[in-house]
Amino acid sequence: MDEQIISPEEVLQIMLKRDRFSEWLGLQVTEFGKGYCKLQYRITEDMMNGFNSIHGGVLFAAADSAFAFACNSYGHLTVALDASVHFTKPVTTGELLQVEAVEVFLGNKIGIYDVRTTNEKSELVALFKGTAYRTSTEIS
Amino acid sequence: MDEQIISPEEVLQIMLKRDRFSEWLGLQVTEFGKGYCKLQYRITEDMMNGFNSIHGGVLFAAADSAFAFACNSYGHLTVALDASVHFTKPVTTGELLQVEAVEVFLGNKIGIYDVRTTNEKSELVALFKGTAYRTSTEIS
Amino acid sequence: MDEQIISPEEVLQIMLKRDRFSEWLGLQVTEFGKGYCKLQYRITEDMMNGFNSIHGGVLFAAADSAFAFACNSYGHLTVALDASVHFTKPVTTGELLQVEAVEVFLGNKIGIYDVRTTNEKSELVALFKGTAYRTSTEIS
Amino acid sequence: MDEQIISPEEVLQIMLKRDRFSEWLGLQVTEFGKGYCKLQYRITEDMMNGFNSIHGGVLFAAADSAFAFACNSYGHLTVALDASVHFTKPVTTGELLQVEAVEVFLGNKIGIYDVRTTNEKSELVALFKGTAYRTSTEIS
Repeated sequence: MDEQIISPEEVLQIMLKRDRFSEWLGLQVTEFGKGYCKLQYRITEDMMNGFNSIHGGVLFAAADSAFAFACNSYGHLTVALDASVHFTKPVTTGELLQVEAVEVFLGNKIGIYDVRTTNEKSELVALFKGTAYRTSTEIS
Repeated sequence: MDEQIISPEEVLQIMLKRDRFSEWLGLQVTEFGKGYCKLQYRITEDMMNGFNSIHGGVLFAAADSAFAFACNSYGHLTVALDASVHFTKPVTTGELLQVEAVEVFLGNKIGIYDVRTTNEKSELVALFKGTAYRTSTEIS
Repeated sequence: MDEQIISPEEVLQIMLKRDRFSEWLGLQVTEFGKGYCKLQYRITEDMMNGFNSIHGGVLFAAADSAFAFACNSYGHLTVALDASVHFTKPVTTGELLQVEAVEVFLGNKIGIYDVRTTNEKSELVALFKGTAYRTSTEIS
Repeated sequence: MDEQIISPEEVLQIMLKRDRFSEWLGLQVTEFGKGYCKLQYRITEDMMNGFNSIHGGVLFAAADSAFAFACNSYGHLTVALDASVHFTKPVTTGELLQVEAVEVFLGNKIGIYDVRTTNEKSELVALFKGTAYRTSTEIS
């Protein structure tokens, strides 16, 4: 629709360079494109909750990062309005999780993204859905 | 309904002692009781996202901790089934946030909790709603 | 903030006159103001699902109407982006339900509303949360 | 896992026979199986809201029916705990909508279903996600 001056890869580099919390989580982006992001991370002791399972906030956060990378890929500053998450399976220290954000809908202002987090057996551990609002600000 | 052998305060101590991620977030519980939790934390550089605002995962995580503390207060192991969150205002480094989890519904198996996060001007920055599932396991 | 040419009551009259589905539901608005709506309706046989309880779509719809009336009360055409609902108690034919929509957040473009539906014993039967997007169109 | 005495088709017939509100909506099931349901319905004047678009409650209700049919297909009485819906496009009188419910997760007690509603141009008009809780009651 509009000519994109900044490429998805440039957006990702800008975001990754500044994103301190994604760095703390150890997120590694493995695939990236317009409206799409795949990343992985390994669960550490510091990510545990009070019952020796992964803290729900960590699962949410990694999915939220994949969502943010995917919805900003077009070069317009895009913010999360709201999101929901289902927790479907416990996760423990040492596991390597895959996170895949897929665009389900892209309107003029609003985008919807599904983000699936799976464990090494390809079992679903968390299902995230995010609503993105596209601002008129260009990312630079 | 049932006699509670373990007190809310004992539950909180057990959870806090083991909850590494809540420790990383620097959460400080200031009020606690059955179905209720109030806590606060200060935003650090490590909690920032790629656009110099707080990472949505941090806002979610702190609310999720307050939710977990509140819904486990009865002494039964209670897990999050799902949760939703709205982000209503940007937050930046150095701000002190207040998080208050309130029980909206308590059924036989299911509980619903609203968690409001506010900044120092008492403005709403995030609104979280969580669904809890009470297991038959006693916390000990 | 802005001078409102059309009053909340005028907005409500315009909406009610045209809202065929709210008419089918038999919704009766009992209180109304800026960002607020209270209404009631009686459950009929036609609202039942396949297991002799109220259809979730009816509970959602009545809450969605209260939400729409409340968020349009300022005179700007406002649309629902998304909504979530929890079902907490079965409801059967003949019951009179109360529905109350309260504004939880009002930003420049986005509003968030909680809508509680209760039965004659004041028990919560459904909890709805809606996200509204305010357009620049004036209601007339 | 367990031997199912009642077939998915028998469950559907039982539900459809009693479901007065789905009948009012004019829902026609076109495909059905374990964890899956596809149906269609035509938008009538009676389904309009106060701004001459389809009432969100109608979109939700039809999706909720597809979800209920899909999650009950295994023969155990299954109830909706919660659901969320995004509205992505206006719909008007006379349009024929397709509704497809797909199982995203099936655990011991909890199931998650995505339901997409599309118009005659195959454009997404509503996206529904529902959480189902399986009771121990057999459908009969």
